[in-house]
Amino acid sequence: MHHANEILFALFIVFVAAQVGAEFAQRLKLPGVVGEIAAGCVIGPSVLGWIAPEQIATGTPLDVLAEIGVVLLLFSVGLETRLEDLKKVGKSAFLVGVLGVLLPFGMGGFWAHTQGFDWGKSLFLAAAFVATSAGITARVLQELGVLQRVESKVILGAAVIDDILAMLLLGVVVSLQDGQGFDPMHLLVVLGSAVGFIAVIGWGGARVMRWNSAWLEKPYSTHSPLLIVLALCLGLAYVSTLFGLAAIIGAFLAGMIASETRQQHTLEQQIQPLLALLTPFFFVLTGSKIDLHQLANADALVVLLVVTLIATVSKLLGGFLGALSLGRMGATIVGFGMVPRGEVGVVIASLGLAAGVFSDRMYAIIVAMSLLTAMITPPILAWLLKRNVSAGLAAQPRDT
Amino acid sequence: MHHANEILFALFIVFVAAQVGAEFAQRLKLPGVVGEIAAGCVIGPSVLGWIAPEQIATGTPLDVLAEIGVVLLLFSVGLETRLEDLKKVGKSAFLVGVLGVLLPFGMGGFWAHTQGFDWGKSLFLAAAFVATSAGITARVLQELGVLQRVESKVILGAAVIDDILAMLLLGVVVSLQDGQGFDPMHLLVVLGSAVGFIAVIGWGGARVMRWNSAWLEKPYSTHSPLLIVLALCLGLAYVSTLFGLAAIIGAFLAGMIASETRQQHTLEQQIQPLLALLTPFFFVLTGSKIDLHQLANADALVVLLVVTLIATVSKLLGGFLGALSLGRMGATIVGFGMVPRGEVGVVIASLGLAAGVFSDRMYAIIVAMSLLTAMITPPILAWLLKRNVSAGLAAQPRDT
Repeated sequence: MHHANEILFALFIVFVAAQVGAEFAQRLKLPGVVGEIAAGCVIGPSVLGWIAPEQIATGTPLDVLAEIGVVLLLFSVGLETRLEDLKKVGKSAFLVGVLGVLLPFGMGGFWAHTQGFDWGKSLFLAAAFVATSAGITARVLQELGVLQRVESKVILGAAVIDDILAMLLLGVVVSLQDGQGFDPMHLLVVLGSAVGFIAVIGWGGARVMRWNSAWLEKPYSTHSPLLIVLALCLGLAYVSTLFGLAAIIGAFLAGMIASETRQQHTLEQQIQPLLALLTPFFFVLTGSKIDLHQLANADALVVLLVVTLIATVSKLLGGFLGALSLGRMGATIVGFGMVPRGEVGVVIASLGLAAGVFSDRMYAIIVAMSLLTAMITPPILAWLLKRNVSAGLAAQPRDT
Repeated sequence: MHHANEILFALFIVFVAAQVGAEFAQRLKLPGVVGEIAAGCVIGPSVLGWIAPEQIATGTPLDVLAEIGVVLLLFSVGLETRLEDLKKVGKSAFLVGVLGVLLPFGMGGFWAHTQGFDWGKSLFLAAAFVATSAGITARVLQELGVLQRVESKVILGAAVIDDILAMLLLGVVVSLQDGQGFDPMHLLVVLGSAVGFIAVIGWGGARVMRWNSAWLEKPYSTHSPLLIVLALCLGLAYVSTLFGLAAIIGAFLAGMIASETRQQHTLEQQIQPLLALLTPFFFVLTGSKIDLHQLANADALVVLLVVTLIATVSKLLGGFLGALSLGRMGATIVGFGMVPRGEVGVVIASLGLAAGVFSDRMYAIIVAMSLLTAMITPPILAWLLKRNVSAGLAAQPRDT
């Protein structure tokens, strides 16, 4: 009966570290999520080593708990998001999504080429600059209770578009790197099926629920609506990975569908304890993946600074330009909201390392960049949103 | 981003199978937990193979989710249990715990010896007959809403004592099997520290909380009481494994401590969504571990039948005799409540297989016996409790 020791200790340490980190951050007037990520860095292999590298690798129990945590987080964000509201900001969200992919991809690729990579490798590296991780921003927006603001809707809509484009780009650069050339027809099919999936599920699902959600409470089922929507959440998270999309996109759609039901308010309350237990695993693990040792020299730090600057500025600019119809303040908020790269950058960096596209050091830099953007965004976003709280409440979407 | 595919599918399948199984069972007027275990058997390696054997092994993500599920389940049972109530049934619980260990150990060992095992191996095999798995019974009692009945208190108290004794017995038979002889002083130390741990935490913790639980709501902490008690639950689950006890014992104590706080009612509500998401993993995995192929011949089935009969009758008798002060009906309920062996028998069987004490076939039989007792108990228990519902409400503990 001793096998459970190690993992129970890890569960306890991760959970407590998250609470302590969040408490510290909030006393410093920072969003709690910053403290959770920092706590992960401290207890992780880089500093204290209470959590070993092999405990946070892909597919380990802690990693799966983290995945469930972020899936539930995006589900709960979806629960507070109506399809109607997303439609109203559709044009802005689309522009933000497209420009927020093109600018980082272009600037990242150009920088990589100046570093001596050939164009094939440069574009691969550039792909790591692209994908926004909606988890971090979503958590900040939720912590501040501003998910109903128009900027939040634009960010969430753009995150869906961003994920589709990032997936396509990754497909392109991987096939270029393989030297197979790339097949535009194949890409069109991939694009079409992903868009089709989102449209059918998001639009169709919401419509069905709005039309009749009484069946969730019918007496022939002994199950609570919570069980049914949790199954929907896990199911759509899985199906969205079949279309090459991130699991959190499916979870977000599931939440959006559930937001149309009469049980929406009850579900929002019931999901809270699940978030309390499971999301800390996502943020603490995000932090514990930062490998400080690889960055412990001046050269690497300079490169990291440059890469992080390019990643931040390019995404900020893309988001800002795309959301200009919200005014300059709104566009700035949207721009910063798109900055965090989080775990998607880490995944692309792992692919690049495995394919021999870049070195261990460049891998560590890309990972650190992804996580640094995740660290610096929450305080800035919180500061902007609090400063702009009265203005935001008055603002109306201008691009209906 | 494709790595998450397989595990997301497994999460979805396990969760949905649990719901479908529970629904079926409830329509057949059986406890939902029977359906969940049966569903696990169906989707597991034995029948459909949707879940592979390497996905349910110890330490895999699904196994860890199952562990968290049963830890939370016993925590929630603890939340509904006051130390005062346990004290009232202390004498009965102690007798049930002791007789419920001695009878199965003696009868199991005697049977094994008649099968041609030497006494060292026979006692090892007998140890697999001993430990009650409180998870299954606790779930049935909770489903029926009878945790406040005196029989439930006796069962829960006896489960704690049972776990201490089972741990000691396991220590003895392992050292006998190693041929090291055994050291009574060492065992006394183990016993003393386990009893000390439970006494200090259970008694001391409850006292502290009863005296002052307002600090859980103090404004200097930005955290909800839920986060604090979840940390307590994970922490005590871990610490109890350090004392050689099952993790669920620590979780149960944590719940019992939390039951003394002013937030008890809120916590009971908040824990429900966590149970809804996570306990299905425990019960489905329990079912999926049954290896039907090893049992697909008449010989093995006969042995299984005999072993299951001995395991059931010996535990039933021990519980019945120990709880006679509750009257014959109450004693029968307590007896059946102690019958399920569940995962503890599986763990001991694994140890025996690894140590070469018995064959693959005997391993499969012991595992199947553990799980069969877990399958047959819930319907009997539910039937007894429903039949006796009016009598039970009137019954008072007689051994105060």
